[in-house]
Amino acid sequence: MVGTETIGEHEIIQLIHKRLTVMPNMPVPFGDDVSAASLSGNEIAVLKTDMLVAATDVPVGMSLFEAARKAIVMNISDFASKGVMPSAVVVALGLPKTLANKRAVTELADGMNYGAREYGTYIIGGDVNETSDLIISVSLFGTACNALMLRSGAKDGDILAVTGLFGKTASGLRLLEGNYKATASLREILVNAVFRPNARLREGLALRGYDYVSSSMDSSDGLASSLHELSKMSKVGFLIDKLPVGSDVEEFAINNGLDVVDLVFYGGEEYELVLTIRPEKWEEAKMVVETVHGQLIPIGKAIYDKKVILKLNGIKRDIEPRGWEHFKSQI
Amino acid sequence: MVGTETIGEHEIIQLIHKRLTVMPNMPVPFGDDVSAASLSGNEIAVLKTDMLVAATDVPVGMSLFEAARKAIVMNISDFASKGVMPSAVVVALGLPKTLANKRAVTELADGMNYGAREYGTYIIGGDVNETSDLIISVSLFGTACNALMLRSGAKDGDILAVTGLFGKTASGLRLLEGNYKATASLREILVNAVFRPNARLREGLALRGYDYVSSSMDSSDGLASSLHELSKMSKVGFLIDKLPVGSDVEEFAINNGLDVVDLVFYGGEEYELVLTIRPEKWEEAKMVVETVHGQLIPIGKAIYDKKVILKLNGIKRDIEPRGWEHFKSQI
Repeated sequence: MVGTETIGEHEIIQLIHKRLTVMPNMPVPFGDDVSAASLSGNEIAVLKTDMLVAATDVPVGMSLFEAARKAIVMNISDFASKGVMPSAVVVALGLPKTLANKRAVTELADGMNYGAREYGTYIIGGDVNETSDLIISVSLFGTACNALMLRSGAKDGDILAVTGLFGKTASGLRLLEGNYKATASLREILVNAVFRPNARLREGLALRGYDYVSSSMDSSDGLASSLHELSKMSKVGFLIDKLPVGSDVEEFAINNGLDVVDLVFYGGEEYELVLTIRPEKWEEAKMVVETVHGQLIPIGKAIYDKKVILKLNGIKRDIEPRGWEHFKSQI
Repeated sequence: MVGTETIGEHEIIQLIHKRLTVMPNMPVPFGDDVSAASLSGNEIAVLKTDMLVAATDVPVGMSLFEAARKAIVMNISDFASKGVMPSAVVVALGLPKTLANKRAVTELADGMNYGAREYGTYIIGGDVNETSDLIISVSLFGTACNALMLRSGAKDGDILAVTGLFGKTASGLRLLEGNYKATASLREILVNAVFRPNARLREGLALRGYDYVSSSMDSSDGLASSLHELSKMSKVGFLIDKLPVGSDVEEFAINNGLDVVDLVFYGGEEYELVLTIRPEKWEEAKMVVETVHGQLIPIGKAIYDKKVILKLNGIKRDIEPRGWEHFKSQI
């Protein structure tokens, strides 16, 4: 039969978009981190939905509380990347029968509530269904003035920046799943990054409303994937001359014979913001983020040539568009 | 261990509500058909999320197009019951690998789009994930003035009405699953009710903004379940003196030795509105619904005694609060 071979997540999303009737005057184009609809005046309603699926998104050892919290955090991260405050959360919960008990439901409810309250929002409703695997399908709602920080907009020469260091999650996942070594304290740091991810909402909100940011997205599919997506949407390339990595991940890489570049670029499940900043606004942007106790780490710049290149110690290396992709990546 | 015995959907929802921090000034209480958050002025943002799970919600023989359309319709029905127009839809899609192909995805996208366009709304975004069973988690957004038709509000003496006849879906499901008989044309009517359910959005929208309706909800868990829910939330009972059933379902019941009352009250997956109307406003309410080519069928009245009673030909019968409940009902 025609069209029955397996296709990847990106192709599926493109195909769906192609089949949908497009809402007139859509304030945010298909394929950005969030969706939006016009409200009265200059205001827009911002929406985001994404599901946590236990089989792919909940590593061994993660508690139900942590899984439920993560389901919220991964959605908040998309709002953060656009500079939008989430006003309310609704949750469609898919529970396997083994979790339809007071103990499990209490833990899940507490985790969702904790995640929402951490970011100043509330869960206002939802629904419960019976599924074979645990599924937490979260939807966020917020309002904004019609000037979100989109994936498109980066210009040749803009400063490429991130809100934190990379590689902890990739390292932590390896520790959880395989035969890797780390001291107890390093293990705790790395595994904690997996179990308790944080969204950069304060940073995203601090930057909104100014003209500092020319493009932005979160790094949930991996830093390499985000850079290629920003590249595609903004029609620029990136030259990275500083690896956003801490001594913890470097130590883990050295002790386990792993490539630190791999850990930094091809991790995923890491919820930093990846942004381009207009060079003349760099100091101001950095300051507003520091005011909310965040950091803006410059790692390179946008370039005319539509490639993503890492240049360290004079050596250039292409960063390929690999990253997590459902139906293509192996679990 | 304490708290590990299986509990039903209703108890799970109550438990979750108890654990959540309640948003201040929530315009719609927990446990109604939709959720809401305040916007500026008198306006509120209305949200609804519910997932279609293939194993429980997609009967044998239903196409992917129909399943995707139904996922939208079942959410629209909740908006209909509150008299709210859905402005935009987002969808978190969980696909098993067997459906990650062009043919299946096209059919799913077309079904979702068709369902949204039928009710004048648009799908503006979403996400795709890998799941073991097909899951279509739909979220709706709309705005309204702060005067929704809630589940609470029915008063002793109000007229109980529905927007259509019941029992077709229950009959159709029996035809699809078991050894029941029907003529080809009857079969088509009954099976079509299962495969192509409709939400009563026009009716709900026609009634909004007036003070005709004292309480309202949809009948997706079965008419009996809706009546008991309205009874609980409004602190009234109901006396039903007319069975909302057509000759098609009566014929099916007689030919198969089934109780027509069972088919009418304990079906579920039927998306009519169940409303109470202030008696002095009955004619006006009926007229506005007929203006949009809908119907308002009186089936009884709200009574002081908090019971749901069917009285036909002088014989009284208690309508028990049975209905579909995840983790308790058998598939």
